[in-house]
Amino acid sequence: MKIKAGIVGGAGYTGGEMLRLLLNHPDVEIDFVLSSSNEGNLVSDVHTDLYGDTRLRFSGLLKQDVDVLFLCVGHGDAKKFLDANPIDKSVKIIDLSQDFRLKAAAGTDWIYGLPEFNREQIRTANYIANPGCFATAIQLGLLPLAAKGLLKGEIHINATTGSTGAGQSLSTTSHFSWRNNNLSIYKAFDHQHLNEIGESMVFLDPAFNAPVNFIPQRGDFTRGILASIYMDTELSGEEALKLYEDYYADAAFTHVSKKNIDLKQVVNTNKGLLHVQKHGSKLHVISIIDNLLKGASGQAVQNMNLMFGLEERQGLRLKATAF
Amino acid sequence: MKIKAGIVGGAGYTGGEMLRLLLNHPDVEIDFVLSSSNEGNLVSDVHTDLYGDTRLRFSGLLKQDVDVLFLCVGHGDAKKFLDANPIDKSVKIIDLSQDFRLKAAAGTDWIYGLPEFNREQIRTANYIANPGCFATAIQLGLLPLAAKGLLKGEIHINATTGSTGAGQSLSTTSHFSWRNNNLSIYKAFDHQHLNEIGESMVFLDPAFNAPVNFIPQRGDFTRGILASIYMDTELSGEEALKLYEDYYADAAFTHVSKKNIDLKQVVNTNKGLLHVQKHGSKLHVISIIDNLLKGASGQAVQNMNLMFGLEERQGLRLKATAF
Amino acid sequence: MKIKAGIVGGAGYTGGEMLRLLLNHPDVEIDFVLSSSNEGNLVSDVHTDLYGDTRLRFSGLLKQDVDVLFLCVGHGDAKKFLDANPIDKSVKIIDLSQDFRLKAAAGTDWIYGLPEFNREQIRTANYIANPGCFATAIQLGLLPLAAKGLLKGEIHINATTGSTGAGQSLSTTSHFSWRNNNLSIYKAFDHQHLNEIGESMVFLDPAFNAPVNFIPQRGDFTRGILASIYMDTELSGEEALKLYEDYYADAAFTHVSKKNIDLKQVVNTNKGLLHVQKHGSKLHVISIIDNLLKGASGQAVQNMNLMFGLEERQGLRLKATAF
Amino acid sequence: MKIKAGIVGGAGYTGGEMLRLLLNHPDVEIDFVLSSSNEGNLVSDVHTDLYGDTRLRFSGLLKQDVDVLFLCVGHGDAKKFLDANPIDKSVKIIDLSQDFRLKAAAGTDWIYGLPEFNREQIRTANYIANPGCFATAIQLGLLPLAAKGLLKGEIHINATTGSTGAGQSLSTTSHFSWRNNNLSIYKAFDHQHLNEIGESMVFLDPAFNAPVNFIPQRGDFTRGILASIYMDTELSGEEALKLYEDYYADAAFTHVSKKNIDLKQVVNTNKGLLHVQKHGSKLHVISIIDNLLKGASGQAVQNMNLMFGLEERQGLRLKATAF
Repeated sequence: MKIKAGIVGGAGYTGGEMLRLLLNHPDVEIDFVLSSSNEGNLVSDVHTDLYGDTRLRFSGLLKQDVDVLFLCVGHGDAKKFLDANPIDKSVKIIDLSQDFRLKAAAGTDWIYGLPEFNREQIRTANYIANPGCFATAIQLGLLPLAAKGLLKGEIHINATTGSTGAGQSLSTTSHFSWRNNNLSIYKAFDHQHLNEIGESMVFLDPAFNAPVNFIPQRGDFTRGILASIYMDTELSGEEALKLYEDYYADAAFTHVSKKNIDLKQVVNTNKGLLHVQKHGSKLHVISIIDNLLKGASGQAVQNMNLMFGLEERQGLRLKATAF
Repeated sequence: MKIKAGIVGGAGYTGGEMLRLLLNHPDVEIDFVLSSSNEGNLVSDVHTDLYGDTRLRFSGLLKQDVDVLFLCVGHGDAKKFLDANPIDKSVKIIDLSQDFRLKAAAGTDWIYGLPEFNREQIRTANYIANPGCFATAIQLGLLPLAAKGLLKGEIHINATTGSTGAGQSLSTTSHFSWRNNNLSIYKAFDHQHLNEIGESMVFLDPAFNAPVNFIPQRGDFTRGILASIYMDTELSGEEALKLYEDYYADAAFTHVSKKNIDLKQVVNTNKGLLHVQKHGSKLHVISIIDNLLKGASGQAVQNMNLMFGLEERQGLRLKATAF
Repeated sequence: MKIKAGIVGGAGYTGGEMLRLLLNHPDVEIDFVLSSSNEGNLVSDVHTDLYGDTRLRFSGLLKQDVDVLFLCVGHGDAKKFLDANPIDKSVKIIDLSQDFRLKAAAGTDWIYGLPEFNREQIRTANYIANPGCFATAIQLGLLPLAAKGLLKGEIHINATTGSTGAGQSLSTTSHFSWRNNNLSIYKAFDHQHLNEIGESMVFLDPAFNAPVNFIPQRGDFTRGILASIYMDTELSGEEALKLYEDYYADAAFTHVSKKNIDLKQVVNTNKGLLHVQKHGSKLHVISIIDNLLKGASGQAVQNMNLMFGLEERQGLRLKATAF
Repeated sequence: MKIKAGIVGGAGYTGGEMLRLLLNHPDVEIDFVLSSSNEGNLVSDVHTDLYGDTRLRFSGLLKQDVDVLFLCVGHGDAKKFLDANPIDKSVKIIDLSQDFRLKAAAGTDWIYGLPEFNREQIRTANYIANPGCFATAIQLGLLPLAAKGLLKGEIHINATTGSTGAGQSLSTTSHFSWRNNNLSIYKAFDHQHLNEIGESMVFLDPAFNAPVNFIPQRGDFTRGILASIYMDTELSGEEALKLYEDYYADAAFTHVSKKNIDLKQVVNTNKGLLHVQKHGSKLHVISIIDNLLKGASGQAVQNMNLMFGLEERQGLRLKATAF
């Protein structure tokens, strides 16, 4: 019997990716896709690449007889939605917004849905706070060190994101004439994902209090995040490589590459790729993901697979765009 | 029992796409991937997006105990390969080069592998000449008219291709510094795909002798072909739309959209999308495909599915890149 | 003594280009730049590439003691502006909108500002209707034939424009996530520039009544138009080449290339480049311009130079971006 | 009387930019452009954007009766060229390669041509070693601090370059299909420009021995470098801003912006723009240049202007591409 899924906020970018994934997922049927602004319209009128693949329409009606609910609404709106719409206890919820990522907001009900960090907790969770895209890329680069208490000094991060990270709203910095062939920095040292990252690090290493210097950049591509991360380490290059390889030995989607990596190796996949290299006293870690997949909807499906006891890669063996 | 597949020429773009598709195809196992220049190397060393997905290595040895052989070598090299390496009659062959597309070269052994044109013949074929990418996009736009003998006057075509259409060899026009933000025309009125198109049209309509004016353009994107096609017609807009909808009613991947279309609706999928509109006396047909999938390796898998009695969409329900 | 120029609508794309050109023009001083929405702000706050080059501020006040006024407002707004703000007879006006391009609207006061078509009339004009960008690219490709009465049969045009052609307003088709790596068609057979083109052709050849089939495309680059144009001709290739070379022998910015051309040859310049080639019975003309320069503000300066008796290239010897 | 200039290695990217600049420079005439591989060919056959602008041809003959010689050959080849071709003492030389940038190679004859660092020395120099592109962007970001001895602790730099930085040779990482929409890191902690930067810093502050951590990135655009630089500082934000503004108060092309900056503000100009901001204990400096202009040929012309007593901006008031 298939898992019945509902999607709330199906007209945005992460909602569209949920649809693209779940329509092809062998163990899921989409029960409804909620979008107040698109009620009654064909899903393929909004996500036009789905034309010919589905006759599904957006719904205006929240239904409770589903197994899992994906919340693909804006930051702040997920909490409001749940406050206004009490959901049956029997329904598992995966929230893609930032509303329940921090412990202060999440309490004990919500589990932070980064499988490389806490896969076992996810398996038994009812409510998942799906991690942010930058936070995912960066944590993949830090977890092996944090798990061994090896994050002692300052951490230096520069990460560049594709335009889809900013969603579909129109703005100066999303205008093609502005963004094409351009590069810029925003929220330097001040990105909100720093808090999620910090909590995970502290959980793994209660003594963690290293300053994290994070410079986010807007790239002139649509999909993907490349994070460059470095810090002092006493590990040799070989030890560091082994540490990372061991940590991710069982990971379903995250792999350590001995060769240098480039962003398009993961675009349109749910993978995370890492490359670690020692330079003098510094350990340099490059981490890449697709911001909409491993950084959002793909990870949500991965979490769903874990929660429902499915094989973790189910529905996520995606053909990379590659070019 | 799975279909055993061999790939000849696995290091190029179409070879890479064959690998990306067949690794996820539920009914296929890849027996070997031949590449003389890469013998012994990991497939993921060349197609780096496959890192973490497969430990397969390129082979230097052609094996005959496979069910199907995909030839992903350059134009001219497929015929040479088969001349030098007689293949057992029991092995079905799908050639992605242009060597057997034209009847003069193909004789009666090779079937032109465009399912929208001759799906039934493909089902029983042993040898398939897989169509060219431009030829696919353009024929999808012309078939419904040709089938009714309605291609009377001149046909006007402008089609723009992504850079992967030119393969992975390095050249001035594939240099990023040249091609980025650029647009240019090549082989105007003289593209070799005109011959394939002509033969299909004549087959459907022996009286066909309309001049086909074809202007190919090099676009500054990596994947996809958008073809703009028009000709005089006495059909009304409604009649034309119905003609196209009827013709493609049973097509597995080709659909007619009442709304205008844009290239990214099909990128990283095996779909063909068409939009037809009457303007004065002209019927305007827009046809879009992904040149490496519906225009090459995806169509090869579709042909394989038909030849082996599989569901036509098997292994080809691909997540669109969308952005 | 320098020409005193005023710019109306200085915050848009064509206004910005006017500023970039006039700030470096040796014979011009900018007297004021009107922008109601930006009154008092630094010009370099809006056109941020001008930071460090000018301390000019937007003005809210129209002044009449200038020699020339450039209207860089939206279509429809130029006429409204002039209706609401009678301008002294002593002030020459160059309007970049479409409001006065057609004779019905322009009457006898306004001269169509395409120097390759009517340079002598421009020299003595007081009011110039600056041509549209598509109209410029296409007319450059047709003028030599029209001038000899050689446009007899149907004309086939496919032209692709950069995103700046659509201005700075935010829309779905200007969103980076949509437009990057995409291609699409709009207003097929129905673009408003067809009317301007038609009037010029009829002026040169009163018998002109050939159907002009025009397919505009949205390209995934920011600057430039490449137009592909063909029609039947009885001219030989050599005759056609000579016809074009002769017609443009004295042109300041429009040149005929014996070699194939590509868009970036003209980006960020005021040039028009043409390539003409005979294929069977067809003459194929490729025409390229920068839509914001030769297709808008550059041509406006060229017209100003002519109107004020300056050397035609003054202030317009621009460094191509080239890459 | 005009300055007579010769260009050695005129067929490459920096040679092309020299031509684009010098053809429009009011005080220079190009005497010859040497290119052994292109002798006799039109310059516009290689730099096709110059078609219609010049009938100049490449020469195979080095002439000594020029005032200035620009060496636009590859790294290593400049020294070889000068060894094989002794140049008259009367000819000033500006070398764009890295061959004479370091003191060990340069001796006392060659002056490092960064006007913001040593403009007065350049004025009287005979031989100029033109700085590297990354080195220029980064030094502009560090000079004000170094000049005050304020570079005490570690320096953290991430800088992304356009594809033209790698020149016109064909390679995997310059292939459009690979580079488009991609991002990657190379030579992490190990870029050769670190040495130039180090020497300038030590010159300004003999006590300088701070580790410089530099991560270069390959961007998917053609022109420009954006460098993100930070370090600990005891300066307040206001003090830092004032320090930078004061240092660059007289700079011809380098300006400090109080607002955040983005790469396209400087593309196709000779400008350097800086933005400085204090975050906690860190001073964050963003520095942008066009790698082919301020990072190569534009700076070479700026140096020539200084050496010949011309106004520093002569021939370099370039129209930004802006989009």
